Amino acid sequence: MLKSSASPAEPKGKRPPVLVDGVTLNGPTLDIREAESFLRDAMPIIMEEAVRKATDVKEKVCEWRSPEQLKEVLDLELRDGGEANPKILQRCRDAIRYSVKTGHPRFFNQLYAGLDPYSLVGRFITEALNPSLYTYEVAPVFILTEEAVLKKMIEIIGWTEGGDGLFSPGGSVSNMYAVNVARYQRCPNVKELGLSAMPRLVMFTSEECHYSVAKAAAFLGIGTKNVYGALPFMVNATAGTTILGAFDPLEEIADICERHSLWMHVDACWGGAALMSNQHRHLLKGIHRADSVAWNPHKMLLAGLQCCAFMVRGQTDILQRCHSANASYLFQQDKFYDISYDTGDKSIQCSRKPDAFKFWLMWKALGTKGLEERVDRALAMARYLAEEIKKREGFRLVMEPEYANVCFWYIPPSLRSTPEGPEFWKRVHAVAPVVKERMMKKGSMLVGYQPHGDKVNFFRQIIISPQVSREDMDFLLDEINTLGKDL
Amino acid sequence: MLKSSASPAEPKGKRPPVLVDGVTLNGPTLDIREAESFLRDAMPIIMEEAVRKATDVKEKVCEWRSPEQLKEVLDLELRDGGEANPKILQRCRDAIRYSVKTGHPRFFNQLYAGLDPYSLVGRFITEALNPSLYTYEVAPVFILTEEAVLKKMIEIIGWTEGGDGLFSPGGSVSNMYAVNVARYQRCPNVKELGLSAMPRLVMFTSEECHYSVAKAAAFLGIGTKNVYGALPFMVNATAGTTILGAFDPLEEIADICERHSLWMHVDACWGGAALMSNQHRHLLKGIHRADSVAWNPHKMLLAGLQCCAFMVRGQTDILQRCHSANASYLFQQDKFYDISYDTGDKSIQCSRKPDAFKFWLMWKALGTKGLEERVDRALAMARYLAEEIKKREGFRLVMEPEYANVCFWYIPPSLRSTPEGPEFWKRVHAVAPVVKERMMKKGSMLVGYQPHGDKVNFFRQIIISPQVSREDMDFLLDEINTLGKDL
Repeated sequence: MLKSSASPAEPKGKRPPVLVDGVTLNGPTLDIREAESFLRDAMPIIMEEAVRKATDVKEKVCEWRSPEQLKEVLDLELRDGGEANPKILQRCRDAIRYSVKTGHPRFFNQLYAGLDPYSLVGRFITEALNPSLYTYEVAPVFILTEEAVLKKMIEIIGWTEGGDGLFSPGGSVSNMYAVNVARYQRCPNVKELGLSAMPRLVMFTSEECHYSVAKAAAFLGIGTKNVYGALPFMVNATAGTTILGAFDPLEEIADICERHSLWMHVDACWGGAALMSNQHRHLLKGIHRADSVAWNPHKMLLAGLQCCAFMVRGQTDILQRCHSANASYLFQQDKFYDISYDTGDKSIQCSRKPDAFKFWLMWKALGTKGLEERVDRALAMARYLAEEIKKREGFRLVMEPEYANVCFWYIPPSLRSTPEGPEFWKRVHAVAPVVKERMMKKGSMLVGYQPHGDKVNFFRQIIISPQVSREDMDFLLDEINTLGKDL
Repeated sequence: MLKSSASPAEPKGKRPPVLVDGVTLNGPTLDIREAESFLRDAMPIIMEEAVRKATDVKEKVCEWRSPEQLKEVLDLELRDGGEANPKILQRCRDAIRYSVKTGHPRFFNQLYAGLDPYSLVGRFITEALNPSLYTYEVAPVFILTEEAVLKKMIEIIGWTEGGDGLFSPGGSVSNMYAVNVARYQRCPNVKELGLSAMPRLVMFTSEECHYSVAKAAAFLGIGTKNVYGALPFMVNATAGTTILGAFDPLEEIADICERHSLWMHVDACWGGAALMSNQHRHLLKGIHRADSVAWNPHKMLLAGLQCCAFMVRGQTDILQRCHSANASYLFQQDKFYDISYDTGDKSIQCSRKPDAFKFWLMWKALGTKGLEERVDRALAMARYLAEEIKKREGFRLVMEPEYANVCFWYIPPSLRSTPEGPEFWKRVHAVAPVVKERMMKKGSMLVGYQPHGDKVNFFRQIIISPQVSREDMDFLLDEINTLGKDL
């Protein structure tokens, strides 16, 4: 197959190409100057469309198209031939144009929002460098920044005895780690022998917990119906529930877990940010007694998706023992440096993104104080909105907010004199979906709604971003009224 | 807590601030113009240091520092106070400087390498827009581009009956999906009742498979010792093993799976790229008979970490049935658009990064033909290197390469006349770690090594990037000889 070969003595750059398997081999086939020139053309588009306009309160949050319409606009099909750079740049513009602007001051739809410039620069750096966190040798800076961030988070949790941890691709995966570590602690044989050799294991959680607990029970072979019964091995406590922003009583749960030797996991993915605030950290009182904690800085702390820490308490090698597979091609034991920095085998992943770095850079820029101020401001804004809701006709709080979730119904004028029977609530239930449809088609804001337990559809307003102003809170209520007053 | 409030009728911008819980609320506290100015200062640093220099063959691949030294240089501690922008920009420079340049033409250490400008622009766009893929309403463009990419990948696999899929955070997680879907197919009750109510399930794989299969067996409660025995439910076939680049015989495995009704999963994370090549796709002959496939475009196709598809064959809703938790706050049934585009409940994650978009954009730019050329060139380069190794004294192939993994020993002059007994191999075993240490400290290149089965430490050269030139192959052999000839 090899047709010819150059002499190794020949001077560089003057060597004839070789033909191998029909491919002519010589210099590189990707010209980095051309690549740079494309990047230079693309960056102003990204800065203008995906940063400046995407965070401008005067622009739309979204430019709604139905799936069918958007498919036509985007011409998604992948073909044999490539396209020239101007065409690709237009595709970039289109992709940004029809995307939802999650950094917009009026994006309230999820448990994340806003855009932090330091985190974004951190993300651009890691995307350009494209590292993977398995070993120190290929990701030294990112292994150490992850360690530094985890150390500080563990200190803030209050684990004076220390701890261990890693960043995972999402709070759901962090909660899965918790289930796995907890059952391993209870039955170390489970790693080798599996659940079929174990007693029936069950776990406890509240009805209000995130759905990832059910997903974890299914995925890890526990079974969703064993989330309560036979041999209990863990309790999942939630600090900041997804819909209501409620906090489980951690001290009481810790007492029970200690009494019965149950692994106590705190899903603080959403509520963990309150730990940064001296004023609000009481919401998580007792978290230092947890065996493990999941905490997502990509939510209220604005580190950008994904940034999710899973941490276990104390001087422990349980992450390593529970998850290791000892791959010889990565985790060689005859390396010349301290291989305790090869943290990859603690993870269930192989390649892993350096999600801590952007958070570290932002933290460096803002300081702990700056992060605390953001949390305090978001919670003050939520309090402000709740008080405004109480004052306004046609708005009703579902409950006093404990955190940054403000849950409320909008009652259109036509319903305000209807008695509060089943018919009233049935009609209120139909209000939020229509208001949501109208706001999306208008692109004026995005706020979530859902039914919950015995409560009909209500709006759930989430407040996070430092770009949100008080006027945006007033606008929210005005706009819902504008969109829904005819219903 | 609420101290005062503005009248809603007051003109915008003229309203007095309100004090809530000690926080003064009024306009935004993050000035996007300042943020933009910081981004504008940071971008030239990223372009020069993390793109241009990081891919320049004349620069170092890495600037080695031990963990202890690097900690001192980086000043990692997170403090109460923030730092000014010039200091943060210096931190960006330092982080890049001491990072390994995985896009460098002489980074051969992992199953990914190189830098594609289109993919990088795609990544910058998604990092700036910060979307999460659960529902169409918050990620319309990224839901549709994922669908378009999966459709094309499924077509390339050869599933004429169609298929379903999603992108996951890594091949390890894709393989976990396969285990979960396979056992669910065999025992649908497992989702609710767990493994303790099932017969003992076992799975088959080869010794050469990726370690993520063992991790999956442990994490999902199967148990690592049940990876072969009682009630078999799946076979994991590997298309492109991690160390040797070997391919399991898919047709034969498919025959056995059909005969015994076993779920056939193909871990094509690494080898899937060969499907893009008419010349090389025979390596995966029979893959169209697989029930599920894991394929990582972030490896040989240069889509950038992470970009990992998991796909199941046929018109099936098994991903939904197997993984759904039906969270009411995301997957409302009373939406105004076609909710089949709300794909999030197929995933074990909640938040999920839009990893398909960058691949889609790159594919648009290069076309299928352009991707095929890259694969053909990488494999031709591997063939060239293998032939060079055969010609050179002191180099010996471990096996003829099937794919882009070229595995070889370097025998220093002092050993070349030693008889090939245990003493010879013991000394050869010690060569690679020392050569690796020296190349890292010099920063001239990065190439992996490992022992494997009964074979002592050998180098594993991986060829991917279109920026690699033929001279880099010659350099690799020259450099190993330079670094190791005194051993």
